[in-house]
Amino acid sequence: MVNKELSPSMFIGVRGRGIISFGSGQPDLPPPKKVLACKAGYDDFKYGLIAGRRELRESLAQEFKKFKATKEDFIVTNGASESLDLAFRAICKPKDKILLHVPYYYSYKPLIEMNHFVPSFVKTNKGKIDIEDFEGKVHDVKAVLINSPSNPTGRLQDIKTLKIIEKVTQDLKIPLISDEVYKDLIYERENYMLSGSQVITINSFSKTFSMCGARVGYLYSKNSGIINKVIQLKTITSMNTNILAQRMAYHATKVPKSFIDSNVKIWKQRRDIIYERMLELGLDVWKPEGAFYILPKIKNPRKFVREMFKKHKVITYLGEWFGADDRVRFSYALDTKEIEEGLKRVGKYLKKN
Amino acid sequence: MVNKELSPSMFIGVRGRGIISFGSGQPDLPPPKKVLACKAGYDDFKYGLIAGRRELRESLAQEFKKFKATKEDFIVTNGASESLDLAFRAICKPKDKILLHVPYYYSYKPLIEMNHFVPSFVKTNKGKIDIEDFEGKVHDVKAVLINSPSNPTGRLQDIKTLKIIEKVTQDLKIPLISDEVYKDLIYERENYMLSGSQVITINSFSKTFSMCGARVGYLYSKNSGIINKVIQLKTITSMNTNILAQRMAYHATKVPKSFIDSNVKIWKQRRDIIYERMLELGLDVWKPEGAFYILPKIKNPRKFVREMFKKHKVITYLGEWFGADDRVRFSYALDTKEIEEGLKRVGKYLKKN
Repeated sequence: MVNKELSPSMFIGVRGRGIISFGSGQPDLPPPKKVLACKAGYDDFKYGLIAGRRELRESLAQEFKKFKATKEDFIVTNGASESLDLAFRAICKPKDKILLHVPYYYSYKPLIEMNHFVPSFVKTNKGKIDIEDFEGKVHDVKAVLINSPSNPTGRLQDIKTLKIIEKVTQDLKIPLISDEVYKDLIYERENYMLSGSQVITINSFSKTFSMCGARVGYLYSKNSGIINKVIQLKTITSMNTNILAQRMAYHATKVPKSFIDSNVKIWKQRRDIIYERMLELGLDVWKPEGAFYILPKIKNPRKFVREMFKKHKVITYLGEWFGADDRVRFSYALDTKEIEEGLKRVGKYLKKN
Repeated sequence: MVNKELSPSMFIGVRGRGIISFGSGQPDLPPPKKVLACKAGYDDFKYGLIAGRRELRESLAQEFKKFKATKEDFIVTNGASESLDLAFRAICKPKDKILLHVPYYYSYKPLIEMNHFVPSFVKTNKGKIDIEDFEGKVHDVKAVLINSPSNPTGRLQDIKTLKIIEKVTQDLKIPLISDEVYKDLIYERENYMLSGSQVITINSFSKTFSMCGARVGYLYSKNSGIINKVIQLKTITSMNTNILAQRMAYHATKVPKSFIDSNVKIWKQRRDIIYERMLELGLDVWKPEGAFYILPKIKNPRKFVREMFKKHKVITYLGEWFGADDRVRFSYALDTKEIEEGLKRVGKYLKKN
């Protein structure tokens, strides 16, 4: 470990005795019972429609009815991350620039570069977009990527900011990709969904319904040109998303809103605890408003991440993976006892270092 | 339909009353019982390892033990098609040339072009690779793609040919991607698996175990550089393959060989019937040796495919999607009664046209 370059893939799926993981961004809460129950009786494993099961897309259209959504506006994918890859590939050619705000979700930059596109970065202040910087840089990019609530900061973009971004991209006819996978996990206000003919919304069942390993996300757009291009791409890459996982996702759409509400209460409690404890430890930290991440400033982050894992069995993610070189990301998707124990270990480390 | 450009995505997942589909390449036979039975008790939907479940990769290593495979040589993907996309993206840069034989599986060409690579084509004679043409073209390509048994021809490449291709690519250190998803469906001899340090084998559970909609395939290579690159790519695109589908695939690896043998008997019967009937209809056709496709020459193929669907409710695939402009692909993945009925309708059409 010490001699190897640190990377997120080292930690994904790693679980074991005594390890406390503030690493991977997955809920520890169980999926809804109905979602699990539907598996037993399901036996049809033929190919499905590339865009996804009709019942699921119809149910999603119902959820988005205030935007006049129809089932034709949706494509069900292998998690939100496949949606993002397909959206970029549908819109951009090699050397095209994509604008995103820093800190960013760690996959964004390598995903853009691996596809031979070029990332362009917008500054933020405590996680909030610097709108002047945005307006100065948006003119020569091919697409804009917004992620609110943000992984790794847990911060929301102000509605005023989001409305400016909506208008500017609409006027310039620049595709606006909005990764809203944490839309249901917000502690301060309702989600403001970006919308308009240039918008591609990316979403997921992973976080809201605790089904990360099932890999079901979706892409929504009123732009039929983009939808058709993405279907073409998916036809020649992964084809239909796992057909049973889609059935499970359909059942998730039928779960009463109270399931989400009671989960959000739990997340908010955890947010309060981790935020308070970090303040007590004297860490420089921004109060998370959504998702389940917090991004404190840490001295010598590489040493911290290495030693917390090796000596204290605590997994954390290096801020530099997210474009935040002086910080470390903690996911608080674990129960309050574990959060307390994990932060006790962090406290021990900080005393010595 | 008549006014729209014909494309395979029109037909994928289309099923209905009275329609006989020689279209999509999916078995009508059921998956093994154990594969279906394991779903009910499975409730863990956390993220899994990006490379895939350990138990499944260990079981695959056991299957490939004569090549000294270990679980580290495998990556489990969303079907073989995702394996192929990831392999190309791991090896090639925009403008790199990829050599493939014509006719080819319909996804190959758009997949290559969508990734901004350039296809280069090797001639075949009745589906068999022209080895002189291959040797003339291989020197300036970045990768070679072989598919035996072939979709859409159903033909096998001769072992002599495969050994030459193995040696030439090995000597030139050119990655050799071998799509062997029909390796278990061969009527004439055992599969000859391409091997060596340059080889990337692509495989699937879809065809052998009738679980296309579950989307489980895998990539195997002794080249750890390529394996690591593909894991990096998968970490930022689709992440782990659906975790339950992998569990199902694990159970498939434990199914006795007799399951496959009795299925192959059924496929061979169907092959014999469709081949005989096509000869009786006077069609110019090559005898399939594996997979479940046959590719007769048809006058005015676009008219044929359109009218067979519109007027006779028979789905067939245009040869031009496969680089065979004067032919039409029939999948015979349906029971013998339907094959007979479908070919009766073809006979009616041919009499009038």
